[in-house]
Amino acid sequence: MIIMDNMEKFFSPDSIAVIGASRKTGKVGNSVVKNLKDSFDGKVYPVNPKADRVAGLRCYDSIEDIEETPESAVIAVPAKIANMVMEQCVELGVPAVTMLTSGYGETGEEGEKLQEELEEIIEGSDTRMIGPNCLGIWDSSSGMDSMFLPGYKMEEPEKGNIAVISQSGAVGSALLDLAADQKIGVSKFVSYGNQLDVSETDLLEYLGQDENTDAVAVYMEGVKDGQEFLEKAGKVTEDTPVVILKAGKTEEGSEAAVSHTGSMAGNYQVYQGAFRQKGIIEAVNTRQLFDYAKTLAKEEKPGGDRVAVVTNGGGFGVLATDAVSETGLELAEFSEETREKLEDVVKDYGNVSNPLDLVGDAEPELYQRSLDILSEASEVDMVLCISLVTLAPIDPSINEIIEDVHRNSEKPVVGCMMGGSYTKMHTDYLEEKGVPMFRRPEDGVKALEALRKYHDIK
Amino acid sequence: MIIMDNMEKFFSPDSIAVIGASRKTGKVGNSVVKNLKDSFDGKVYPVNPKADRVAGLRCYDSIEDIEETPESAVIAVPAKIANMVMEQCVELGVPAVTMLTSGYGETGEEGEKLQEELEEIIEGSDTRMIGPNCLGIWDSSSGMDSMFLPGYKMEEPEKGNIAVISQSGAVGSALLDLAADQKIGVSKFVSYGNQLDVSETDLLEYLGQDENTDAVAVYMEGVKDGQEFLEKAGKVTEDTPVVILKAGKTEEGSEAAVSHTGSMAGNYQVYQGAFRQKGIIEAVNTRQLFDYAKTLAKEEKPGGDRVAVVTNGGGFGVLATDAVSETGLELAEFSEETREKLEDVVKDYGNVSNPLDLVGDAEPELYQRSLDILSEASEVDMVLCISLVTLAPIDPSINEIIEDVHRNSEKPVVGCMMGGSYTKMHTDYLEEKGVPMFRRPEDGVKALEALRKYHDIK
Repeated sequence: MIIMDNMEKFFSPDSIAVIGASRKTGKVGNSVVKNLKDSFDGKVYPVNPKADRVAGLRCYDSIEDIEETPESAVIAVPAKIANMVMEQCVELGVPAVTMLTSGYGETGEEGEKLQEELEEIIEGSDTRMIGPNCLGIWDSSSGMDSMFLPGYKMEEPEKGNIAVISQSGAVGSALLDLAADQKIGVSKFVSYGNQLDVSETDLLEYLGQDENTDAVAVYMEGVKDGQEFLEKAGKVTEDTPVVILKAGKTEEGSEAAVSHTGSMAGNYQVYQGAFRQKGIIEAVNTRQLFDYAKTLAKEEKPGGDRVAVVTNGGGFGVLATDAVSETGLELAEFSEETREKLEDVVKDYGNVSNPLDLVGDAEPELYQRSLDILSEASEVDMVLCISLVTLAPIDPSINEIIEDVHRNSEKPVVGCMMGGSYTKMHTDYLEEKGVPMFRRPEDGVKALEALRKYHDIK
Repeated sequence: MIIMDNMEKFFSPDSIAVIGASRKTGKVGNSVVKNLKDSFDGKVYPVNPKADRVAGLRCYDSIEDIEETPESAVIAVPAKIANMVMEQCVELGVPAVTMLTSGYGETGEEGEKLQEELEEIIEGSDTRMIGPNCLGIWDSSSGMDSMFLPGYKMEEPEKGNIAVISQSGAVGSALLDLAADQKIGVSKFVSYGNQLDVSETDLLEYLGQDENTDAVAVYMEGVKDGQEFLEKAGKVTEDTPVVILKAGKTEEGSEAAVSHTGSMAGNYQVYQGAFRQKGIIEAVNTRQLFDYAKTLAKEEKPGGDRVAVVTNGGGFGVLATDAVSETGLELAEFSEETREKLEDVVKDYGNVSNPLDLVGDAEPELYQRSLDILSEASEVDMVLCISLVTLAPIDPSINEIIEDVHRNSEKPVVGCMMGGSYTKMHTDYLEEKGVPMFRRPEDGVKALEALRKYHDIK
């Protein structure tokens, strides 16, 4: 049974020791101290017997020399002494230890022995551990950051309502980088590695209670305890949507997972069935992981399956239609009332049908009037608004129009814009304003399907 | 039978008239003149009886007033006078006319009548026409540009070896914008609209003979003459790979296509089967369209199905393995000789297996040595090199290493890097240097599968 108080101390401790602090730029123990010093509000205690100061902070010979028992510790020493350091943390009663050190269960016989030793050290103690073989924690509220990634190579995401947890440190860090690039706000990030103590299940339970988190995106390979996970994740997803990218699906992929995080990936079909039953949403790639998580975090329950599509490029409408037909959704059939209203708006531009093609001449005002009608039509459950902003008649006011409709509508409204850097300025703006944005019609349709599925099971 | 000489004049005429030239910024007839003036080497004749000069060029009252018969013309006048203007072009014997004007077969009864009239006008003449209802032509060699897109909203792609043709102007322009953003070089672009005269088949045949084009990416909804298209596209693809995104696949999508470009989308299953048989590669979305086209344009025929994957993030290796298992490809089984060589390189880092996980500590040199071994191993047919460049030990020399292996290897070598803007600097560089780059392992694997399929059928 996980102690939730302890979990809190991973993310917002009053004080944190960095064991294996280093003066050398580029070293893990240097990056972590610098990151914490820059962003974290609590006290930071570098520990390294060979240094007096690290990043301008007083350095301690041992964690035992610190005047208080820190609420958390990050261990970044080589595997051969990491267990000894862990023992000190346990003896002191440090509540939350993040073990970055690798060379454990993921590396063969010797590592497995070390991992068994480590397990014995923490067993029965009050110390909880994340890792080993992980990339650490990032919390956009507390400024906690035990990740050792060079800042100039990665942007940090904005503060937001999606938590990301990843068994793979590399995939996790890339996800965080992608989130920053796509303006997807993140509440907390955890790379949990070999999950010797704190498991993905513990993290999910904790994040399910986190007031800053409205959806959890999970990259996982193997599960520590499949049955427990499914049961508890199923509970979490009732209130806080859980989206999972399960890697190691195939036999070969499963074998690759063993040599990666030392964990069995298990039978994919079993997971898949269980996910579906429990209302856990499965993403089949990293793109869908965020597409689904952000849509589930931001949008309300749709009333049904009926999608209205509006576009200024007929081809996008055709692509959206194909996508709708390939999912469990359907295109809304406009009522006579809606048709009449739309005809009044569209006039010479196009035909009133779904997708509603406003054609390339459409000015933002035409979007406004169309979206107002569609978002109020009782036969429409969800709206996909596609706008090619590179066309001459579209000016940036399109952003405010979409933002307003999204805010005022009780229905899910998502946007799609395809293009290069000018287009990205628009999608970035809207994503930050809370509108789930997609680069391709089919991605938006799939996300609406995930939203519908999620609420359908619930 | 299409006259190839005339086709050439669409792309690199000596002189071009812009009928419907406009002084008003933002108008189609203004953008086209300005674009041509900026980029095109030949003579440009604006035509508009109400203007003396457009964009600083002398303006003519009518195409008949120009001192010579221009080799090409762009028509950008309203539908109600467009047919009359076309009649003048035919009478003068202008070889190649691009009709941007919309309001024809795509807009119902009245438009259909206009389209029939237009057909009668050009029938039997020596004038060839692209359009109507299209976005024009862009040629990176000649500077020909009849597209009316505001330059500040879109980047132009670099000169390159992929031709793009699109039935939808909106999708086409977004594709061009995406190509620019992803550093995919483009030879020629055509938005062909209602294809009343010049069809997608004619364009494919022409591009198949174009020395600047090594692959053609096609977005299409309906085909003018299905049997002719499949036969001729099948011939083209033997030497110049043809990749097609066919929209209007589903019944509903097909209906949407009718109201869009006025053309029947036809039975998708029939197309799909025929594509496969003819060696035409199908993309299921716009992402795959470029992923496949660039890989087919840049990479040689692989010797077999066996892929080697190298990575510094185990999770990416697992994702790649899943993807390989889900395609018709397989992971190469390393020979004893290869294993020994790799063991010597990898040493303490990781296990020698495929995917080869160099782990997060890997420096660029480790990539170099591993890639050298893999690219020369006879049991390896293709290489997918995944590198998370945000990790501390990776510096920009990784780019040169991948570039060199790609250049020196006789095998297909593609790269994958996932992340934000720092990562994009790397993928942009490598893409420009001719290495097909992907943001996700599964995208790279799918592209290698497409490459294999293409050569397998051939």
